[in-house]
Amino acid sequence: MRILIPALLAAAALPAIAQTPPAPPPPVTVPADVAKLRDAALQDDYAWDITEGLTTEVGQRQAGTEAEARARAWAVARLTAMGFANVRIQPFTMPVWIRGAESAEILAPFPQKMVVAALGNSASTGPAGITGEVVGFDSLDALRAAPDSAVRGKIVFIDHKMAPTQDGSGYGQFGAPRRQGPTIASQKGAVGIVVRSIGTDHHRNPHTGTQSFANGATPIPAGALSVPDAEQMVRILKRGQPIRMHLTLVSRTLADQQSGNVIAEVPGRDPSLAPVLVGGHLDSWDLATGAIDDASGVAIAAAAAKRIMDAGQPLRTIRIVWFGAEEPGLFGGAAYQKSLGTQPHWAMLESDFGADRIWRVTSKLGTERRTEARTIAAALAPLGIVAGSYEEAEGSDIGPMLAAGQPGVGLSQDGTRYFDYHHTPDDTLDKVDKEQLRQNVAAWTATVAVLAGPISPRPAPKAGRRR
Amino acid sequence: MRILIPALLAAAALPAIAQTPPAPPPPVTVPADVAKLRDAALQDDYAWDITEGLTTEVGQRQAGTEAEARARAWAVARLTAMGFANVRIQPFTMPVWIRGAESAEILAPFPQKMVVAALGNSASTGPAGITGEVVGFDSLDALRAAPDSAVRGKIVFIDHKMAPTQDGSGYGQFGAPRRQGPTIASQKGAVGIVVRSIGTDHHRNPHTGTQSFANGATPIPAGALSVPDAEQMVRILKRGQPIRMHLTLVSRTLADQQSGNVIAEVPGRDPSLAPVLVGGHLDSWDLATGAIDDASGVAIAAAAAKRIMDAGQPLRTIRIVWFGAEEPGLFGGAAYQKSLGTQPHWAMLESDFGADRIWRVTSKLGTERRTEARTIAAALAPLGIVAGSYEEAEGSDIGPMLAAGQPGVGLSQDGTRYFDYHHTPDDTLDKVDKEQLRQNVAAWTATVAVLAGPISPRPAPKAGRRR
Repeated sequence: MRILIPALLAAAALPAIAQTPPAPPPPVTVPADVAKLRDAALQDDYAWDITEGLTTEVGQRQAGTEAEARARAWAVARLTAMGFANVRIQPFTMPVWIRGAESAEILAPFPQKMVVAALGNSASTGPAGITGEVVGFDSLDALRAAPDSAVRGKIVFIDHKMAPTQDGSGYGQFGAPRRQGPTIASQKGAVGIVVRSIGTDHHRNPHTGTQSFANGATPIPAGALSVPDAEQMVRILKRGQPIRMHLTLVSRTLADQQSGNVIAEVPGRDPSLAPVLVGGHLDSWDLATGAIDDASGVAIAAAAAKRIMDAGQPLRTIRIVWFGAEEPGLFGGAAYQKSLGTQPHWAMLESDFGADRIWRVTSKLGTERRTEARTIAAALAPLGIVAGSYEEAEGSDIGPMLAAGQPGVGLSQDGTRYFDYHHTPDDTLDKVDKEQLRQNVAAWTATVAVLAGPISPRPAPKAGRRR
Repeated sequence: MRILIPALLAAAALPAIAQTPPAPPPPVTVPADVAKLRDAALQDDYAWDITEGLTTEVGQRQAGTEAEARARAWAVARLTAMGFANVRIQPFTMPVWIRGAESAEILAPFPQKMVVAALGNSASTGPAGITGEVVGFDSLDALRAAPDSAVRGKIVFIDHKMAPTQDGSGYGQFGAPRRQGPTIASQKGAVGIVVRSIGTDHHRNPHTGTQSFANGATPIPAGALSVPDAEQMVRILKRGQPIRMHLTLVSRTLADQQSGNVIAEVPGRDPSLAPVLVGGHLDSWDLATGAIDDASGVAIAAAAAKRIMDAGQPLRTIRIVWFGAEEPGLFGGAAYQKSLGTQPHWAMLESDFGADRIWRVTSKLGTERRTEARTIAAALAPLGIVAGSYEEAEGSDIGPMLAAGQPGVGLSQDGTRYFDYHHTPDDTLDKVDKEQLRQNVAAWTATVAVLAGPISPRPAPKAGRRR
């Protein structure tokens, strides 16, 4: 009633003209085969099996290393065994940063060891390490505002407190100390930097990640403390006594190492039509088996394509791309963009935010394809997925191509616990929730079936003998 | 109704004699000052402050090392500053096992690194490590049953699956692979052993802990894999291919190192009466700051004594003992037992199972002190604590003295999440829940107030000038 009264008052105050509401959009129909494929995907474990296999039989697969090469070989064998066509590697080369020994130790006033991991492209301290006084800042802005004299010759520590969000939107804001802190600290004359891990957990597992020294800044040793260690540092800083730290972050850099994308296809009935690209990235950080980042991503994309392929032949080709070298800077996406990525695509989709459930679908297919976009949303609604914007898609490797005008669909995964494990030693298979993964694959399957369809059913197998 | 029918049938079948129920025990009264101290303790953070201080200003404090010596110095200063009397160190010496570099790597069939921690008293592999074929067993009994020929020259792996329990009772059963596995593996000719961590978490943080080679078994390198790594090993074993592992567990052993108990007292009004001992252990494992094992334990015991001391003087002396060197084998408890522990004590209590809430009270005070035991139970009931057996108490360092006949009270802490962190790098301050810790201290305060009381109130301070 309290809502009704202002509405009545407002109506009374309006001029007495006829109000014509916009016409509702025409209803869309979800094709029966799309609904059937979606529901069938809720029952299978194609994606789990790929995730389990890749993380067990390859393990970590850092970009540009022999481990990533083993992952490519594994991927070619697996995608071939699954029945996909045109399985191939698209090679490229890249520089590689390699982690060595690392440790952090408070020498005074309270001697104790801390857990640290170097950030990508950190300078090496050499095996002897460096020793310096710690100067602490509670944010990147506080470091920015500090006079050089407060930083020069010291080891910078930046605190912050990343909070979990469903859509992962905190990664931009809270990732800034990792991405920009080392450059700013270097420019102010620091001899090294440790940041609070960009993470939402409370475990002694630091979060690595890439950064690069910009604007001509001299590389300095740069690491991340685990969240409990960063909180310990804050408590020690509060005591107000000078802190001396010994920091060892050994690393080396290699030029022109081999990486590559692995590509496979479900050929469409009309090869002249633009393909639907579905992908994830094959490489992981070196600290763990990368189950959520991004073994489950490549698995989700392939599982959706597999189920459609088994049901029949889609009108359009579905192209699976397992990108190489995403973590150090989207090298695989760039290699694809330079070659096939300039050709028209019907849509691009990438799974790179864990294995939890899809909660929202967005798309950027253009106004003339609104009915297609609305059909996707209608197909996903029974999975508890809400319809978002028709003006945006998302993806890491495909991001630059989406920005360059390629159409795309964004299937937003629940990222509430993603930054508990992201880029840590803890990104292992036990973090994947089979039930949520099934919902995720079901959403992908329905989406790709709409985009690549209609699907011509395969002829029913002949009746076999009954046992 | 289904319950009633058999009861009626059973009654009908009984001989027709008069049933006299046992007389209910006489009511007990909780002294008003005990209730008041209990409720006041729910509002303060004495225990948090001690836990925060010890874990921040000392950090890890492995028994027999310079870190434990710093912890003793810290303890003497803190207990003195809190106003306790007779603060002193009871020294003793002990052998010390020291951890060095450690790593584990699968060389074949799927090359990858695993996270491992040496168990106490592990033999050293030397810096070059050892390489061997892995033979896996799904339980300690399976290892026991294996022929020597299946084990000789290999690295044994023992799996199991520890489940969390409120009372921690799984530690006996699931701790067996750690405690007995190395000895059995050695006796069968293994060159090394790694066990699944004795833990209920899923993080890449292995659980260390002590073990000793019994029955003349030759020491071999012995470590614990983190739970995710142990699960990975099980998946690799299931592939059925030979597994080669490179294992490095460097360590050394030092004889006759210095340790000690730290003792402080609240003197009672009648020094001739047996004291009430409240304690925990000051040392921790070396991997973390030991916030739950056992900084919070020493803090809880001292916080209870502090609140009583501030309210007045108890009849009996309260003796705080922060035991040294519990982890490697109850050395501090043994040193106390040999000296003061043979004298009569009114009761002994030890907190060594984390910082979570008390859920049960048991006691072993003798039948003639049943009213006292029931008064304690009545004082704790408002905190949601149930009354358990009158025939048992518990404690690690005090265990042998309780077994030798000393009376005691057991305040059982909720251990559901204790083995998520126990003996891992993750035993840090952020795992302590302030609210649960307050309930815990309130229970201790009420219990100790009953045991050491009555408490003579201090004279009220003179009225000061009003501001």
